[in-house]
Amino acid sequence: MLKFEINTINKKSRRGFIHTAHGIVQTPAFMPVGTAGTVKAMMPESVKATGAEIILGNTYHLMLRPTAERVASFGGLHRFMNWSGPILTDSGGFQVMSLSKLRKITEEGVTFQSHLSGAKHFLSPERSIEIQYLLDSNISMAFDECVKFPAEYKQVQKSMERSMRWAARSKAAFKDREGYGLFGIMQGGMYEDLRMQSVKALTDIGFDGYAVGGLAVGEGQKTMFEVLDYAAAALPEDKPRYLMGVGRPTDIVGAVKRGIDMFDCVMPSRSGRTGQAFTSQGVLNMRNACHIDSHEPLDQACSCPACQNYTRGYIHHLIRCGEILGAMLLTMHNIWFYENLMKEIRTAISENRFDDFHDTFMERFQEERKM
Amino acid sequence: MLKFEINTINKKSRRGFIHTAHGIVQTPAFMPVGTAGTVKAMMPESVKATGAEIILGNTYHLMLRPTAERVASFGGLHRFMNWSGPILTDSGGFQVMSLSKLRKITEEGVTFQSHLSGAKHFLSPERSIEIQYLLDSNISMAFDECVKFPAEYKQVQKSMERSMRWAARSKAAFKDREGYGLFGIMQGGMYEDLRMQSVKALTDIGFDGYAVGGLAVGEGQKTMFEVLDYAAAALPEDKPRYLMGVGRPTDIVGAVKRGIDMFDCVMPSRSGRTGQAFTSQGVLNMRNACHIDSHEPLDQACSCPACQNYTRGYIHHLIRCGEILGAMLLTMHNIWFYENLMKEIRTAISENRFDDFHDTFMERFQEERKM
Repeated sequence: MLKFEINTINKKSRRGFIHTAHGIVQTPAFMPVGTAGTVKAMMPESVKATGAEIILGNTYHLMLRPTAERVASFGGLHRFMNWSGPILTDSGGFQVMSLSKLRKITEEGVTFQSHLSGAKHFLSPERSIEIQYLLDSNISMAFDECVKFPAEYKQVQKSMERSMRWAARSKAAFKDREGYGLFGIMQGGMYEDLRMQSVKALTDIGFDGYAVGGLAVGEGQKTMFEVLDYAAAALPEDKPRYLMGVGRPTDIVGAVKRGIDMFDCVMPSRSGRTGQAFTSQGVLNMRNACHIDSHEPLDQACSCPACQNYTRGYIHHLIRCGEILGAMLLTMHNIWFYENLMKEIRTAISENRFDDFHDTFMERFQEERKM
Repeated sequence: MLKFEINTINKKSRRGFIHTAHGIVQTPAFMPVGTAGTVKAMMPESVKATGAEIILGNTYHLMLRPTAERVASFGGLHRFMNWSGPILTDSGGFQVMSLSKLRKITEEGVTFQSHLSGAKHFLSPERSIEIQYLLDSNISMAFDECVKFPAEYKQVQKSMERSMRWAARSKAAFKDREGYGLFGIMQGGMYEDLRMQSVKALTDIGFDGYAVGGLAVGEGQKTMFEVLDYAAAALPEDKPRYLMGVGRPTDIVGAVKRGIDMFDCVMPSRSGRTGQAFTSQGVLNMRNACHIDSHEPLDQACSCPACQNYTRGYIHHLIRCGEILGAMLLTMHNIWFYENLMKEIRTAISENRFDDFHDTFMERFQEERKM
């Protein structure tokens, strides 16, 4: 059971609070990705300093290494990785499809080979939920099948229907406790009628929150927003709505406008490690020689430690030298940027001016992303 | 001019204070190495938290990238890298020999190719001192030539004599200011008479401190201590004595016993990145499977953040996954271990019980290093 409290509704956008056993999450929320029990290149206290209130862990990675049973023996993922706040875990379904080798899917579940060792593993709704329980995840995700994009109607339909049967099995396997919850995942690709059938199936089962799956798979922002226009609206109003694996700053702002409450994406951390910096003026490539003599911070408008204490010239130097500190500073800055964006979004909703915020942001950030 | 104040002398070991324009350094001191303007995998505030009061920067690396002139345009190395404490820079001599390609040494200086770009560069005593001035180094090192070990008497003699002529030129090029100093470097290999000639030459010139060069080049600890027995003793008593590039914990304890005041070494940071942990019980290889289920901290006796908040099992997991946080935590812990060792050394000297400390440490750490 997860209590979800909605504080303000501004047209379709909502500002709320999810109450978990490890603390409260303000929504709309962005969850930094802590793949293998660490938000890459970040100390947990630095993650917290960015304003992040919840992080995401990956069932697929953790089940392979160090294994869910081992994490449980360390007292759960929070204690293992020294993150005392809430944690959401994915179900492993997506990464089984994208990372593992030699998958075999049956109604029972998925047999696959580890991308690390080649060893054979099995995931089913029951095993995924058990793993997430062992990890002590505050928000578990139902185990689903993800189809590649683009896919034919028949294929998407068949896959969605199986995912809904798996959602029911996930719910049956979930051990309900105060401050812990299970989210269902809507599928149906870019087909409105399948999305509606999926919502119906999920709400009949009943979950603590609902995720929109099967987006951000290459369909483009325009199509994603078109799907969200009906898909987000169809989800229950009184539960958190989570758009999985999204995204760029404009994706997030546009999705909040359509009623989404939660996001996760590797973009701020991964792009930090490759030398990209998100700024209020757009995205900078810190590898570019144009920064070599710059005494400016990454972003004049940012109050993160990287912007308070370091110049673009220094960070450019670190990136050119392949220094770990470059990845550390840029990751910290980028997550800070994302979390600050979420704060601005929440404030704009509270003040009933989210539409203006949206329009200004979309214009400014789109325009200047060419930098 | 650098004021050096000796507080306690315990047989040959000394506890003192070096007063620099950027703060006071307690000796015996260990300097973490900040090669290219960063102590690898560490935020400067974390370096400070280890107890480090001074760090080392590398003239060779910084002159190639981002260049000394560029560091100067950023207000010097302290401001460029956000380290407000004292900085010592080496002269570049050692790394020109060990890293660069196609060296040509003349009486004037060394012409060499960058190991990064292949571009031609030139270093002389005058240019080395100018670079260290541009970096705003608190302690500059005289430019010297380093011979390979082992080397014939004649070769060592010829090289040492040239280094002494270069030391005089370094002194002439140095701009003396309050809180900034220049150290001479003793050479002479493993030959006592050459070491004595070198001391004589250096003290005739007069420096703010004296380094022992040409050790830790493969001669082994026993030989190094034999050389230090006469070499350290021959150096002026009223100036800091610096053993360059040393070393393992037992090297440091043994050298302090012989009158050395300052050390630098990449060992704690480099070995951190490769999964080694220094502990009060010896050295651990965190890659080893024996740690996979350990709920213990790296070192029960250590108060560093890595030991307060993380288990060996978690750190093993990070190292096995190649996670940056593993390098971050182990580097922090190892430098903390070194700095804590220096604190214990200083306290033992203050309390006139350094000999006991030395004997206990040598026995304990030697014995258990096999772990």
